[in-house]
Amino acid sequence: MIKVGIVGGTGYTGVELLRIFAMHPQVQLQAVTSRKEDGMPVAEMYPSLRGRVDIAFSSPDNAKLTECDVVFFATPHGVAMAQAPELLAAGVKVIDLAADFRLQDIAAFEKWYKMPHSCPELLKEAAYGLPELNRENIKKARLIGNPGCYPTTMQLGYAPLLKAGVIDASHLIADCKSGVSGAGRKAEIATLFSEASDNFKAYGVSGHRHSPETLEQLGKLTDDKVGLLFTPHLVPMIRGMHSTLYARLAKDIDNAALQALFEDAYKDEPFVDVMPFGSHPETRTTRASNMLRIALHRPDNGDTVVVLVVQDNLVKGASGQAVQCMNLMFGLEETTGLMHVPVLP
Amino acid sequence: MIKVGIVGGTGYTGVELLRIFAMHPQVQLQAVTSRKEDGMPVAEMYPSLRGRVDIAFSSPDNAKLTECDVVFFATPHGVAMAQAPELLAAGVKVIDLAADFRLQDIAAFEKWYKMPHSCPELLKEAAYGLPELNRENIKKARLIGNPGCYPTTMQLGYAPLLKAGVIDASHLIADCKSGVSGAGRKAEIATLFSEASDNFKAYGVSGHRHSPETLEQLGKLTDDKVGLLFTPHLVPMIRGMHSTLYARLAKDIDNAALQALFEDAYKDEPFVDVMPFGSHPETRTTRASNMLRIALHRPDNGDTVVVLVVQDNLVKGASGQAVQCMNLMFGLEETTGLMHVPVLP
Amino acid sequence: MIKVGIVGGTGYTGVELLRIFAMHPQVQLQAVTSRKEDGMPVAEMYPSLRGRVDIAFSSPDNAKLTECDVVFFATPHGVAMAQAPELLAAGVKVIDLAADFRLQDIAAFEKWYKMPHSCPELLKEAAYGLPELNRENIKKARLIGNPGCYPTTMQLGYAPLLKAGVIDASHLIADCKSGVSGAGRKAEIATLFSEASDNFKAYGVSGHRHSPETLEQLGKLTDDKVGLLFTPHLVPMIRGMHSTLYARLAKDIDNAALQALFEDAYKDEPFVDVMPFGSHPETRTTRASNMLRIALHRPDNGDTVVVLVVQDNLVKGASGQAVQCMNLMFGLEETTGLMHVPVLP
Amino acid sequence: MIKVGIVGGTGYTGVELLRIFAMHPQVQLQAVTSRKEDGMPVAEMYPSLRGRVDIAFSSPDNAKLTECDVVFFATPHGVAMAQAPELLAAGVKVIDLAADFRLQDIAAFEKWYKMPHSCPELLKEAAYGLPELNRENIKKARLIGNPGCYPTTMQLGYAPLLKAGVIDASHLIADCKSGVSGAGRKAEIATLFSEASDNFKAYGVSGHRHSPETLEQLGKLTDDKVGLLFTPHLVPMIRGMHSTLYARLAKDIDNAALQALFEDAYKDEPFVDVMPFGSHPETRTTRASNMLRIALHRPDNGDTVVVLVVQDNLVKGASGQAVQCMNLMFGLEETTGLMHVPVLP
Repeated sequence: MIKVGIVGGTGYTGVELLRIFAMHPQVQLQAVTSRKEDGMPVAEMYPSLRGRVDIAFSSPDNAKLTECDVVFFATPHGVAMAQAPELLAAGVKVIDLAADFRLQDIAAFEKWYKMPHSCPELLKEAAYGLPELNRENIKKARLIGNPGCYPTTMQLGYAPLLKAGVIDASHLIADCKSGVSGAGRKAEIATLFSEASDNFKAYGVSGHRHSPETLEQLGKLTDDKVGLLFTPHLVPMIRGMHSTLYARLAKDIDNAALQALFEDAYKDEPFVDVMPFGSHPETRTTRASNMLRIALHRPDNGDTVVVLVVQDNLVKGASGQAVQCMNLMFGLEETTGLMHVPVLP
Repeated sequence: MIKVGIVGGTGYTGVELLRIFAMHPQVQLQAVTSRKEDGMPVAEMYPSLRGRVDIAFSSPDNAKLTECDVVFFATPHGVAMAQAPELLAAGVKVIDLAADFRLQDIAAFEKWYKMPHSCPELLKEAAYGLPELNRENIKKARLIGNPGCYPTTMQLGYAPLLKAGVIDASHLIADCKSGVSGAGRKAEIATLFSEASDNFKAYGVSGHRHSPETLEQLGKLTDDKVGLLFTPHLVPMIRGMHSTLYARLAKDIDNAALQALFEDAYKDEPFVDVMPFGSHPETRTTRASNMLRIALHRPDNGDTVVVLVVQDNLVKGASGQAVQCMNLMFGLEETTGLMHVPVLP
Repeated sequence: MIKVGIVGGTGYTGVELLRIFAMHPQVQLQAVTSRKEDGMPVAEMYPSLRGRVDIAFSSPDNAKLTECDVVFFATPHGVAMAQAPELLAAGVKVIDLAADFRLQDIAAFEKWYKMPHSCPELLKEAAYGLPELNRENIKKARLIGNPGCYPTTMQLGYAPLLKAGVIDASHLIADCKSGVSGAGRKAEIATLFSEASDNFKAYGVSGHRHSPETLEQLGKLTDDKVGLLFTPHLVPMIRGMHSTLYARLAKDIDNAALQALFEDAYKDEPFVDVMPFGSHPETRTTRASNMLRIALHRPDNGDTVVVLVVQDNLVKGASGQAVQCMNLMFGLEETTGLMHVPVLP
Repeated sequence: MIKVGIVGGTGYTGVELLRIFAMHPQVQLQAVTSRKEDGMPVAEMYPSLRGRVDIAFSSPDNAKLTECDVVFFATPHGVAMAQAPELLAAGVKVIDLAADFRLQDIAAFEKWYKMPHSCPELLKEAAYGLPELNRENIKKARLIGNPGCYPTTMQLGYAPLLKAGVIDASHLIADCKSGVSGAGRKAEIATLFSEASDNFKAYGVSGHRHSPETLEQLGKLTDDKVGLLFTPHLVPMIRGMHSTLYARLAKDIDNAALQALFEDAYKDEPFVDVMPFGSHPETRTTRASNMLRIALHRPDNGDTVVVLVVQDNLVKGASGQAVQCMNLMFGLEETTGLMHVPVLP
């Protein structure tokens, strides 16, 4: 059994980790920290876990995280980099679901997250936790920067095209839509039911933190200069992410060959489903599961390919992906504890 | 492995059975019938099942249901009673999720479902599939009438009070609220998103089919005459049911004793959670799980007890309960394949 | 033109007043106060008002409210009673949408709102702002306590029955359901989209502030002792309230006579619609309008009558009702500026 | 008073016309036809109209539409062109909310709508009902093809850029999102609450009827060849449309000049609101109103401009726009009966 600790278990990625671990056959939950809720049983805050998670939140000071095999940070940006050095020194692996170890470009990190990076040398050894594109490094890593939700869809959607060199990498347009849980469990006006329900809006159109992360990763897949215009939108649904990715074709390629690029790329991937050409994946077909689905379109057989990507932002876009990384780091079957069938309807 | 067939796999209780079976370790899915979709892969209609359910819908005529160990009917009322005799004769167990084998009172059945009952003698041997109140009969049964969603909440909510004889059984008021999936997957105006969203209404206030079923079962729990006023409402959510049950106390009893009635009644039940006195259970704490949660209130310490009951109408209210019955009928651990943690948020 | 001021224009009842006033032919908006948003154009916070409301929020200190003809308080409980004396002394009428002037029973006020009442003598002259039951007093009043949303439905639903003396007043059960906007525009976890959406729950079952208000008012309609069990629930919709009211009949009365009680009571009321006996009113049929609709049921022709009442909690349940009072206080046609057709779908 | 008839009053654009007309000071509703609902009071189907619309549906055969001044067709494609000749011959003006008179390119019409056009000569005289771009023709017209909902947003969003010649017209990308009411009031599985709620998907990505209409109209605004990639998506909300329009800049132009193009183009338009540069308009700021709001972005000050456009798909995207045309055709103030303030929250 892997002894697991969670720092920051009160947010949505935290409770999603708890849900997954409660059904994971190789995990023993050791500690869930919350300074504010110290002593409160986890299942009191989340009655969905009654009878399934027996421990209480503990103060970070008392949590004995160094006795864990791995600690997940489901915390605001900046927390993991403060605590990771001590844990790693004690032989504990670390998986950060925030941004502290995602961006190798420290200047970009500091610009977008508005804080200095406190351990640049650790950052260098951190593995970017997207198994489909970085599996071997994850297996060997003791420190993971878990990808952002939007970047996961953009990378898996563009990767086969960029690797094959069939698109103009300089003018990618990613029009992305996320469920409201992506905003986290924070007391804020903008994500109140009465504000976000029966409504649709874009946000961060002039610039969003997930652009530099995505650009850095996409740049590894091609020698061409990558340019990305990323537009996030907020959808009145709890979970789910839909990315509509546009790319101009730079080479003559027919639709069957396009489709083959994706099917070949992901044929052995348990969590990436390439649907038939021309399909319209729905976010709900991934709800509460670690699946990500992709479908290709070529409107009017023109020079633009449209890649549709859906996932559950809290699972493949966050906590499920983190557990997938953990499985790899500890030599488990990659799918262990992650084979939940999506909840539909 | 139990060989399972599903008649009518295209509705919501059907696809929920498919979701549960895809994760059930002791089930081998043999056939899913749909006359209309004969030949279509199940996962084409429900892409959430891609890679998890490999078979196609088959016409009822070709489905070889007699080779199954058990057949579930997730069909409109009237279908199961037409096919059950042949299956039972062939040694196949039958679980009907519709109303054909719920009501022993044939006159009531015929009044409310507006069709004659075609096999009254089979009806007599059918077990009512509510394990918490009828477990031993279910274990021995070859034919199950799976309870309605509303009746499940009303019975489990009122049972400890009726058995203890502490309430006035003659004037029960059950104000119940259901998510829209309870109306099924039928092309109808009234359950369109644009009709049912951002809206709330009662329906069937002057009389609803679930009243006679509930009355018949509640009557078994007490010698008193049971009177029930049942008011269903439609909530703009997909899954979930919340029953607010009112009863006047007929005996002097304090709150601790009331609470003890429920805790004692359900202390060994894996799927019934009695929450602390005065709790407010939320439907989402049962979402996509087989859990049912109960909490008691005594407003102003007056003479009325209020019982709040929540469940997922498609799981404990339908397909999960049916699988719970199957587990019992085949001597499996009752919780096999049903221990999914509720999906929250 | 009536010169109107609004104290606390940033909440939902405040912006609803602004929406109504922007279309009210006899109102000139003088000031909208918000200490926090001083100087911000109202239409910057609420772009729905761009081009329709030209003024900015002003600090309460600078708002010159004493130059208004009437000031509405769309504020937390306790604000209006602090400022009302000065305004009234300056000849300004006051309409409070909070609870400061609703309850004549000061002990009850202080128990439920947990603050001393600062002007009991003003409270005595305050008129309870429910025109259908208190029209003449409102016309003459200079100070209005605008009813709570739930109490409006309970009073208009029970009044004809209580006045006629046909029900047992001692054991009323009101099972009520409200849209989320009733919780106000406050940064709170419990009303986040990801918490309140796709979910249903009761709250305050053991006791709620709207009980004493309703009891006090219902008591005026009958000499019998009134007992009320009031259970509020939260519905995942923005606007709308549905009250399901139960009462045992104390006299022999047929359904036509019951229906006549309501039709007679409300035949001249522009904002109360008595639907045909046995109807199921939907909340959306009142959306964004000042209409309240009522329908009667008599399940199984038994001894219990069920009254279904729907309204928009922000309009007839709050701001629209307040404007209705204003119209009466200033001698306008009662319906002025309030004849918006409900928005459906 | 203008005598108005509506053919097909049972769908969402029909009931929205009824809602608007019930508050329009210059309209007298003469007839609302529905073959299926002949004789049923309109307010029985739509209780939101109780007390506001007194007439019943009448069979098209009896409706005496030739006595109207104007007839609106809120019908499926193909109905208006069958009946328009007789009405026009009788001196009745016709406004079709479907596609019969939108596309001058008959081949495109027949390809996309899969029916022959029965009156090509009438089509030639039909005015395209987008007042902001075609006001003078509408004023003189007796026959209007009311624009599609998506095309309205795309045209008003791209028009200033195309007219000024500052963008590459050959590769426009319009990523559009619509509320579910856009699918109409039809009994269909795909738009059931349980299918469309808590879900997001694209549809018609490989080709959609609104492309040829938009292309034909955009072509009038520029001598350049226009190429458009249009991707519609379905949002779990009732009303609202959000179009995210991308265009590569073909000329050196700064952001202030871009903004000025839009402010100049729409400075006298009562229903088009150009928001400050960099704003994020929300669909709900137009809910139940005829307003359309636009905001510009220039991500990273790069070579791509992003135009965000929101409207209520049933009002400015359909019925409100049709009434706006009617006002122009009959010499009324263009805003008559259309100045409803958006409903927020």
